[in-house]
Amino acid sequence: MKITALAGGVGGAKLAHGLAQILRPGNLIIIVNTGDDFEHLGLYICPDLDTVCYTLGGLANPETGWGRAGETWQTISNIEKLGGPNWFRLGDQDFATHIERTRRLKAGETLSQVTRDFCKAWGIHHAVIPMSDNPIRTIVNTDQGELTFQEYFVHRHCEPRVKGFRFDGVEEAKAAPGVVEAIEQAEVIVICPSNPWVSIAPILAVPGLRSRIEAKQVVAVSPIIGGQAVKGPAAKMFDELGIQPSALAVAEQYRGLVKSYVLDKIDSQLEADVRRLNMRVFVTNTLMKTTDDRKRLAEDVLNFVGSNT
Amino acid sequence: MKITALAGGVGGAKLAHGLAQILRPGNLIIIVNTGDDFEHLGLYICPDLDTVCYTLGGLANPETGWGRAGETWQTISNIEKLGGPNWFRLGDQDFATHIERTRRLKAGETLSQVTRDFCKAWGIHHAVIPMSDNPIRTIVNTDQGELTFQEYFVHRHCEPRVKGFRFDGVEEAKAAPGVVEAIEQAEVIVICPSNPWVSIAPILAVPGLRSRIEAKQVVAVSPIIGGQAVKGPAAKMFDELGIQPSALAVAEQYRGLVKSYVLDKIDSQLEADVRRLNMRVFVTNTLMKTTDDRKRLAEDVLNFVGSNT
Repeated sequence: MKITALAGGVGGAKLAHGLAQILRPGNLIIIVNTGDDFEHLGLYICPDLDTVCYTLGGLANPETGWGRAGETWQTISNIEKLGGPNWFRLGDQDFATHIERTRRLKAGETLSQVTRDFCKAWGIHHAVIPMSDNPIRTIVNTDQGELTFQEYFVHRHCEPRVKGFRFDGVEEAKAAPGVVEAIEQAEVIVICPSNPWVSIAPILAVPGLRSRIEAKQVVAVSPIIGGQAVKGPAAKMFDELGIQPSALAVAEQYRGLVKSYVLDKIDSQLEADVRRLNMRVFVTNTLMKTTDDRKRLAEDVLNFVGSNT
Repeated sequence: MKITALAGGVGGAKLAHGLAQILRPGNLIIIVNTGDDFEHLGLYICPDLDTVCYTLGGLANPETGWGRAGETWQTISNIEKLGGPNWFRLGDQDFATHIERTRRLKAGETLSQVTRDFCKAWGIHHAVIPMSDNPIRTIVNTDQGELTFQEYFVHRHCEPRVKGFRFDGVEEAKAAPGVVEAIEQAEVIVICPSNPWVSIAPILAVPGLRSRIEAKQVVAVSPIIGGQAVKGPAAKMFDELGIQPSALAVAEQYRGLVKSYVLDKIDSQLEADVRRLNMRVFVTNTLMKTTDDRKRLAEDVLNFVGSNT
């Protein structure tokens, strides 16, 4: 089965890794959100792309889910001693990614070219493609004004109350080479358990992608379990937007797009409500604590959609 | 006694450190060559300035004389894994200096402002001033064409034969704030044992500096001992320019500028020849192996010039 997955950071990376464990490289393409990307310390930083790559390459910090395993912090702690910005904690290994990517982007290469080469160097055989080579910036509208995503997420610890989102530059952006083909060739599109507002919505907002995805068999895995986000501010965002956070609320967000929906067992009472949104529902354990959990959930998802194709 | 020292990298930094051990902060200003500066990996790197600061701050690697003590190499080895340029070995602590400096320069600050703040953060109380805030680039003319200094020095291991030097941008450059004042207020200018061609000549080439220095009591310490450079390519450069490398050849290079000259004991036979250049001569041990050697040589130099003032 040819699968194209849409992913944000930690949760998305875990399911993408599960899929990569069971699908041959030719059968899986992972399209990653770049709305969180930002320039910091003069470096071009792609948090979601790096989390997906580090996870697939077996390089990710198993404790945090992001950053590198066995990381050291010499550079950032010395920047701090010099009075420089220290709110975004970059490790020494991680700095290499940003420095070399920035060098190549400034030399005129595209983000997707650089990502392809980095994946090769990291021994990642499955295709990982940024949604766009053009800058698209998720802007969070809050009670304290508009904030760039990392400013909101890392610097302000998601404290400002969310009023809405926009994706700066998305109208002028093009999907990166291979993204449209990945969607058109896919038998199934998997929306990974990523934040629907700031990880999946930016991908869907890239011109031409949403309508192409809608024409496909699309399965989504809820990033909200028992009313809580496994990681990140998704539940808080729903709440502040006046929506009770739940796996059902996520499904409503994906109405008209998603035909098959995967719920955690803890949320099985929502099954009937989700069905009313014209979605098939599969209930399973969706919490991925171990590497085996990732593989098992990926198998569950593929069996579920396979039973419909 | 108010002293202003002119310094390049390792040798210059050692004598500057010796002077700093015996002179109060108000009585010593160190002007540092920036002709070796270059942009690499998108970062603004100042090898001589950093060597002087790391040495004065007690942060320098005691083995190499440059770079940081207790350095780690996570970032550069990961850049290498990604196929990036690895010929210039930057340590993780050292990267912090370049990243934060580059960030501040891009934000519109000058190199001398950034250097002053870095010195404060590193606990350096003596003034360290780059010769200029404008980019001046030492270009080495070789049998393999013109090379930037770091390309010649680090990437090509000084292998191309030297034919000459030029200092790109020097005509348009201005001395950094405080440099002219440092020279004018100084009772003695100390030319540290640095490479005359690529460490001291660029400082002298900054418009207005040579004539002001010439008007002063100037003492130089030979960087060549027994016909050999203690560190770096000075002797090789003399040789390739058709000049027998020696402490005398350095003195000839400084003719008309330097009134007092410090020779190593091993070169005492050159004393009469140097005197014929209208220089007073002092013979002592000039090799600085230990921190105490630096202080002792600094004392010798100051006693020598003090006996003439």
